[in-house]
This record gives sequence, C-alpha cells and structure tokens, in this order.
Amino acid sequence: MAGSVNRQVTLGARPVNYPRESDFILVESPVPEPDEGEVLVQTIWLSLDPYIRGRMRTVHAYATPMELGQVIVGGVVGRIIRSRTPAFSEGEIVEGSLGWQEYAVSDGSGLRRVDLELGPLSTALGVLGMPGMTAYFGFLEVGQPRTGDTVVVSAASGAVGQVVGQISRIMGCRTIGVAGSPAKIDYIINELGFDAGINYKTENVSDSLGAACPLGIDVYFDNVGGEVTDAVFDHLNLGARISLCGSISQYNQDEPEPGPRKMGLLVGRQAKAEGFLVSQFRDRHDEGRRRIATWMREGKIKYKEDVVEGLENAPRAFMGLMQGENFGKLLIKVSDE
Amino acid sequence: MAGSVNRQVTLGARPVNYPRESDFILVESPVPEPDEGEVLVQTIWLSLDPYIRGRMRTVHAYATPMELGQVIVGGVVGRIIRSRTPAFSEGEIVEGSLGWQEYAVSDGSGLRRVDLELGPLSTALGVLGMPGMTAYFGFLEVGQPRTGDTVVVSAASGAVGQVVGQISRIMGCRTIGVAGSPAKIDYIINELGFDAGINYKTENVSDSLGAACPLGIDVYFDNVGGEVTDAVFDHLNLGARISLCGSISQYNQDEPEPGPRKMGLLVGRQAKAEGFLVSQFRDRHDEGRRRIATWMREGKIKYKEDVVEGLENAPRAFMGLMQGENFGKLLIKVSDE
Repeated sequence: MAGSVNRQVTLGARPVNYPRESDFILVESPVPEPDEGEVLVQTIWLSLDPYIRGRMRTVHAYATPMELGQVIVGGVVGRIIRSRTPAFSEGEIVEGSLGWQEYAVSDGSGLRRVDLELGPLSTALGVLGMPGMTAYFGFLEVGQPRTGDTVVVSAASGAVGQVVGQISRIMGCRTIGVAGSPAKIDYIINELGFDAGINYKTENVSDSLGAACPLGIDVYFDNVGGEVTDAVFDHLNLGARISLCGSISQYNQDEPEPGPRKMGLLVGRQAKAEGFLVSQFRDRHDEGRRRIATWMREGKIKYKEDVVEGLENAPRAFMGLMQGENFGKLLIKVSDE
Repeated sequence: MAGSVNRQVTLGARPVNYPRESDFILVESPVPEPDEGEVLVQTIWLSLDPYIRGRMRTVHAYATPMELGQVIVGGVVGRIIRSRTPAFSEGEIVEGSLGWQEYAVSDGSGLRRVDLELGPLSTALGVLGMPGMTAYFGFLEVGQPRTGDTVVVSAASGAVGQVVGQISRIMGCRTIGVAGSPAKIDYIINELGFDAGINYKTENVSDSLGAACPLGIDVYFDNVGGEVTDAVFDHLNLGARISLCGSISQYNQDEPEPGPRKMGLLVGRQAKAEGFLVSQFRDRHDEGRRRIATWMREGKIKYKEDVVEGLENAPRAFMGLMQGENFGKLLIKVSDE
C-alpha cells in the first residue's frame, strides 16, 4: 500500500514577518520502517493551524521551537499501514501530531484512535479535534458565558470561531462575529445563525460593535488580538470575560506591534482577560467531542472546511492562512481516504 | 468650634494631560447648616488618591465624572460638629467621601464611624481604609497568591503597594517591589522586608526582574500599567495572575499611549489579567480591616504617610502624586485632631 518515497516539508528558514515559500523545503526520503513496538502511518489529512507559526520562532512561546531542517509540526489523520505493536492494527484510523509528511513512524504514544461514527475523518482535525476542543473549553470554561450574554468572536468563520459562535447560539447568547470578507459574514449569519457580523477590513469595528451590541459585550473570544481586540475594549460590560485563544494578527510581527494601551480599562470594568491552551482540558476532551458530535447530529453545529490537495501545496496554503485567505478549517488532503 | 467660612477646592477645568494649578479653584462660602436628619462634619484628614484623576475626565470610567465647579471628590476623616440625627453624636469621628473642603453636610448615608482602637485617625484613609482594603482584597482574592509564589508589585511604596508587599511577605511569598527613587527602594527592602526592589527610573526593569525573579513571576499586582507592566510580561510563569488595580502611568494621557501589544503572551502562559474595584468587596471590608489591624499590632504591617498641611496645598500635592513625587500614603491635614 505504501509507496517507496516519503515526501516531507521541513523548516528551511525561520520566517521574518510573514512566511515565504523559501522558508519551506520539500524533501524526499525512503518511507521509514517501523521498529518493534512502532507503527507506520500514512497521512490522509494534514491540519494547518495558526499555532504552527509560533513554533517557527526561536522564542519559546506555546511549546519548544522547531529546529531548522525539522519536519514542520502539524496534526494528522492517517491510516496504520504497518503495525509492530499489539496496540494498533493495520487499517485503523488514528489522529496525532505527525507533521507535514506523507508517512510517519510512531511509537503510538501520541496517537488517538478516531471514532468513525462521530463524523467524517477530516472532522477529527476540526470540529471534533483540536479546534473544536479549543472552542468548547475556551468558550465555556474560560469565557464563562451565561444565557442572554452578548458574545463577540473574532476570526468567526475560522476553525475555532465557527464552533464558538454556534455554541454561543445554542446557549441563547446574542452572538456577533468579526471576519474579513463579505462571503464570510454572509456565511456566519445565514448558515451558522450568528446575530450579526462585522467585516474588519471595511468597517470601523468599534462603531459597528456599538451598533451590534446595544447592551455591551459580556464575553469576547479572541483569536486575533490587535486592532479588533482594541475595538472590543471600548464596549466591555462590567464583569466581562475575555477568553484569549490566540492573536494571529501579531504572529507575523517580529517585534510586538505598538498599539494603544487599553489593559487598564479592565479595572473600571472589573473585567478579566485569560489565556488558555487546549491542552489544559486534555482530560475532558472526550466529553467535549461527544457534546459537539451530538450537536452535529441534531443539526445545531455545522462546519466549513477549506481543502487544499497535495502536500506540496501546504506551504502556500499556510501562507494564505496567515493572511486570512482561508475560509473555514484549512486542511491538506495528502492521500485518499 | 466651627469657623464661619468654608473653604473648598473645586474643579476649575478638566486637566489636559497632567493637572495644573489652574485646573483647581479655591473658593470660600459660608459653613453650611445641617437640615433635620443631617450632620455637619469638620474635615481633619483628606485623602489624595490616583482614582480622583479619572473622575476629572468626561469619560465614564470608574464612576460618574465630576462636573466643572463641583467640589473635588475625596475621602475624608472628620468630626461631627453638629448633629440633627440620632444616628450620630457630636464629637464622633467618621470617614466618608466628603470631598476637598473644610466642612461638609451629610445625611449620614455614606459615613462610617471610625474605630479609634484600631489605629490613628489618619489610618482610616490609608492602611485601614480604601487603600488597605484595595490591597487586601485585590491581592488575596484577585491575585490568588500561594505560599512560595514570586510576587511583583508596582508603585510599591505607595498607599496600596506597601500593604500588598507586606501581606505577600506574611504569606511567605518572594516579594519584589518596583518604585521610583533610591529612598523608596531602601524603604521597601529595609523597613518593609521586601526581598528586592527595582528603580524603574534608572534600571532596565525587564533585566532587573529577570535577576530578581529567577523562578519567574506568579502574581503581579499592577498599580501603574505602561512600561513597567510590559516588562513584567516578559517573566510571567504558567498560570500567572495579574491583579489590575490601576494604571497611573496612563491617567494623564488624553489618548491611550501606544505600547507593544503583549496581551497575547497570556495565551501561552495560560495566565490572566483581572481588573477589580475595592467596592466589589464592600461587604467584607470589616474583615479586611480587622486582619490588617491585627497585623499592625503584631508589627507585621507598617505604613508610611506623606502629610501635607492645609487644604490650599491639596492641588499641588495632587499634582505631585500624579508624578510619583509622594512617598507613602498622601494625606492633607486640614485641621487638628
């Protein structure tokens, strides 16, 4: 079933500001052989996520930086095509952080068997994977929404934002999304049921938030940081919660971009901003997955994927992700299911 | 006992950036007569606190803005010199928000009888008053320190900071203060028992924090915002808590000063920044007061006051407070005890 050549994308250079094609190197090597106790996985789906940009830096932020020449990190859904451990059988579908490559050897320690009943394979990297868990726990546990609250989510049509907004709707919260194109705004309102959408590229976000949130903002789920977040600060209610998930607007700045100092506004608002990582809630991911799968079956949670074919196109797709060019969860289809 | 003239300081103009003498007007009027149900209070001590600067703005931040011509707001300890209500007797000492004036009429609703056993009268505006309660609840409830944590407090010799640092020492936390003069640094280390002090005017704060906090920072009690807070962000531990009390470095900027965007660092650190107001904990102030009074009796909490004589000197003293020129809790002695 395996070919003889393994294609991999490695880190050629650390990007300066936005990543460029030359920062990535496509290399070929023989398909590796699993040792005793290991499995060989063939990649089907590769997940491209904003956190990867942080791993390309020398600065230790979320996790250990990648080394130059290392295969780029990334979540994968793949098939076990050889097994030398009783823990996995050939043909099983697993999810794990196996990186930008067509084949990977693993000792199985970071692999999770994908429950094929819950949804299509690709959802194990999206709505039922890391982004979905990020949305579920970051919104409910960190954002602490209450029914009737006004909720704002940035990068609202992205892998995490789309799930946050739909859970917010399920809870009975007024839900406003910020996104970067008319098609994305149309999607979150007319397909996902958001109450309003704001195009940060064409609108004055603070003015639009004022109009869309007449009762102020109780929860802000922040994927972007920067100017959108500045605008949210103008409308925070007493006791507001900001769930800090990411700040993609800043990931491609080598020095922190200057912006107005607004953190002091949290004092008078008796409000908080709290960062989290999805791994904090690792022990409860199965709970989150079951809840979201149930909502999917009930038609209450939909999802949108942005699929690019072929590992060789991952660098360009990732560059687009950094610019907000993707529409929905960005996935590379590396091989057929 | 009362003279016939009441001197008051009113808001003459809204300050542009740092307040100037001409923003304040000293006016004279007859000493008011209490109506049925009211008392006349003679001011003994007037408290000057940073929050007052916020009330001079048109923007609604902590509370309703002052009007031009209004007596400047401020906490007072005074003596009841006429009472037309059974609730208070002549001669009693009370504390309340009676403003920058020598005499005030009150219906008693905002007055608190001062417990003369707990400490000198002036402490009802300092270590046993609003600043002390701000320190006690803002540090313990919002900062959530644990024994062994490393704690950093800015404006460390100020009314709030000095109490935060000493409670931190009582708890067994490594305690680092940031302040603005060699005398202040000497005081917090050698009188109050801080483990280290950093002079933000002469040192590279981030470098000094790195040296003083080899295990990183677990709790930051922030009175100042701005560049000192930026430096703290470089050293936050996983799960760090920032208790946002104020941001005096920004109060005299008409537009938010630009600074590096660092809030996104809270994500990877799984850390939070939470604003609070002392009024949140109103129902528990008696608890805080008793605890601090006990520590004072045990010699575990000391305090430093910066006393200026005469109501007419309040504007200049307040201008100095905005520049960090005070050393300890700033009080105006308006009349003899």
